[in-house]
Amino acid sequence: MENGKKIVLIGSGNLAFHLAALLVKKGHEIIQFAGRNLETTAELGMKYFTSHTTNLAQINTNGDIYIICVNDSEIANVAKQLKLGNKLVVHTSGTSNISLLKSASSKTGVLYPLQTFSKNSKIKWKKTPLLIEGNDLETGNELKDFASTLSKKIVPLTSAQRLKFHLAAVMACNFSNHLYALSKDFLAKEKVNHFELLLPLIDQTVKKIKKMNPNEAQTGPAARGDKNTIEAHLKLLGKYPESKKLYSLFTQSIIKYKNGKL
Amino acid sequence: MENGKKIVLIGSGNLAFHLAALLVKKGHEIIQFAGRNLETTAELGMKYFTSHTTNLAQINTNGDIYIICVNDSEIANVAKQLKLGNKLVVHTSGTSNISLLKSASSKTGVLYPLQTFSKNSKIKWKKTPLLIEGNDLETGNELKDFASTLSKKIVPLTSAQRLKFHLAAVMACNFSNHLYALSKDFLAKEKVNHFELLLPLIDQTVKKIKKMNPNEAQTGPAARGDKNTIEAHLKLLGKYPESKKLYSLFTQSIIKYKNGKL
Repeated sequence: MENGKKIVLIGSGNLAFHLAALLVKKGHEIIQFAGRNLETTAELGMKYFTSHTTNLAQINTNGDIYIICVNDSEIANVAKQLKLGNKLVVHTSGTSNISLLKSASSKTGVLYPLQTFSKNSKIKWKKTPLLIEGNDLETGNELKDFASTLSKKIVPLTSAQRLKFHLAAVMACNFSNHLYALSKDFLAKEKVNHFELLLPLIDQTVKKIKKMNPNEAQTGPAARGDKNTIEAHLKLLGKYPESKKLYSLFTQSIIKYKNGKL
Repeated sequence: MENGKKIVLIGSGNLAFHLAALLVKKGHEIIQFAGRNLETTAELGMKYFTSHTTNLAQINTNGDIYIICVNDSEIANVAKQLKLGNKLVVHTSGTSNISLLKSASSKTGVLYPLQTFSKNSKIKWKKTPLLIEGNDLETGNELKDFASTLSKKIVPLTSAQRLKFHLAAVMACNFSNHLYALSKDFLAKEKVNHFELLLPLIDQTVKKIKKMNPNEAQTGPAARGDKNTIEAHLKLLGKYPESKKLYSLFTQSIIKYKNGKL
C-alpha cells in the first residue's frame, strides 16, 4: 500500500491488541512492539512476526509513527524516555493533554478512538470516530491522512474538547454498563437469574436514541410520575443500598428533566 | 386465522397503539377500543375500522379477551367497572398485581411485554419477552396459547417475580437512557454538540454484554483505578451538580464491583 507507514506500537493492553490488528489490515507495517509487560508484548511480536522490546532505550528509530497506547498515568513517563527528533509521536488517550509528549519529538499528536476495547470483542473501526490533534497544522494534516486510512470518521479537536467527549463517553457507556451489571446482579440475587430477557429492551433503548432525543424517548415510572411503582421498586431495593441510592437520584433527575429543569 | 381472537383493547397510549398493530397483523380481530381519551381512542378506532367508546358501561361483551393497557394507577378503577363473567381479562403492567383484576371476571391474567414503547419506534415483537400470569392453571394455559401467537418468547412468572424484572428493566434501560440524555445535554452546553459521535461506542457497549458478563466488559477510568482522569472529569462537572453526584456514586460502585464487593 502506497500510504503504508512503519509503526512502532508502545503498550500491550486491549487497545494495542485491537489497533495492531487494524494497522496490519490497512497495510501499515508494525516494525516493533514496545511494552513493559514482557508476556503480552512478546505475544504481540510473535503474532505479527516482528520484534518486541521491554526497554524503551532500545526503541527502533526507523519508524514513521510512534503510537503510545499505555495508561494515562504512564504517558508522561514513556514520553520522557523517547528522543525521536522529528518523527510523529502520538498518544491515544481521551484525557491526557497533547503537551505531555512535548519532549519526545518536534511532531506530536493525539489519536483517540472513541470506543470501548475488550480483548474478545470485535471493533467496527470504519464507524469508530478517531478524535485527532496535532501540535501544529502540518502535523495535524499528516495525522489526519494517516487516521483516514483507519476510519471514515476523523474529528480534529483540541485536548480540552476531547476531554469533554471522554467524560460524556464514560457517563453514557461505562455507567450504562454498570447499570447492566447491577441489574444482572439484582436478578441473580433475587433468584430470577435471566438477565438475557432484558436484552431486546436494551437494544430498543439504544435504537430509539438514534432517531429521537433521549429525553423524548424516555419511558418508565419516573417519566410517567408513577409514584406507586417508584415506591414498590424502592422497597424491593431495601437490601441493595447502593442501587437504591442510584434509583432515587435517577428518579429525581428524570422527573426534573421531563419538566425541562436541567 | 384459526386461533384468531376477538379483542377489546382498553387504553389508547403508546402500548395500545403498538399492541393493536401487532394483534391485527397476527390475525386477531379488535372489536372495540375503549379509553378515556376520546381523541386517541377514536383515532385507533378509525385506523382499524372498528368501534370505540369512552364509556366502560358500553363495553362490547362479545369479546374473547379484554386487554387493559392503562396507567398502573388506573387499572383497579377500570377493573371495578368491568363485569365480564368468564371472559379472559388481562392487564399489561410490570408492577401491578394480578389480583387487581379479581372483580372483573373469573378468568384474569397478566400479559406484560418487557419492552419500551414510543409512538414512532418500531418494535421487534418476535423477540420481545411476554411475561405472563394466569389466575389459575387453565387461564394460564389459555393466555400462553394466545401470547404464543404474538411472540416467540413467553415467560410464565408470578406477580412478585414480574415486579423484579420490571425494576431491573427500569435500571438497565430508563436509567441508561437518562445517562444518554445527561451526556447529550453536557456536550450541548459545553459547545461540542455532537452526541452522535458516541453512538458507535454505545452500540459496542451493548454488543459486548451479549457475550460477556457486564462486570468483565467494564472499561474506563473507574475500572482502571485511574484517579487523575476521575479528578479531571469531576472538575469538568463542577457546573453540573446532579451529574457530578451520579459520577461519584457510579465511580465508587464500579470500583467496589471490580473488587468483588457487591
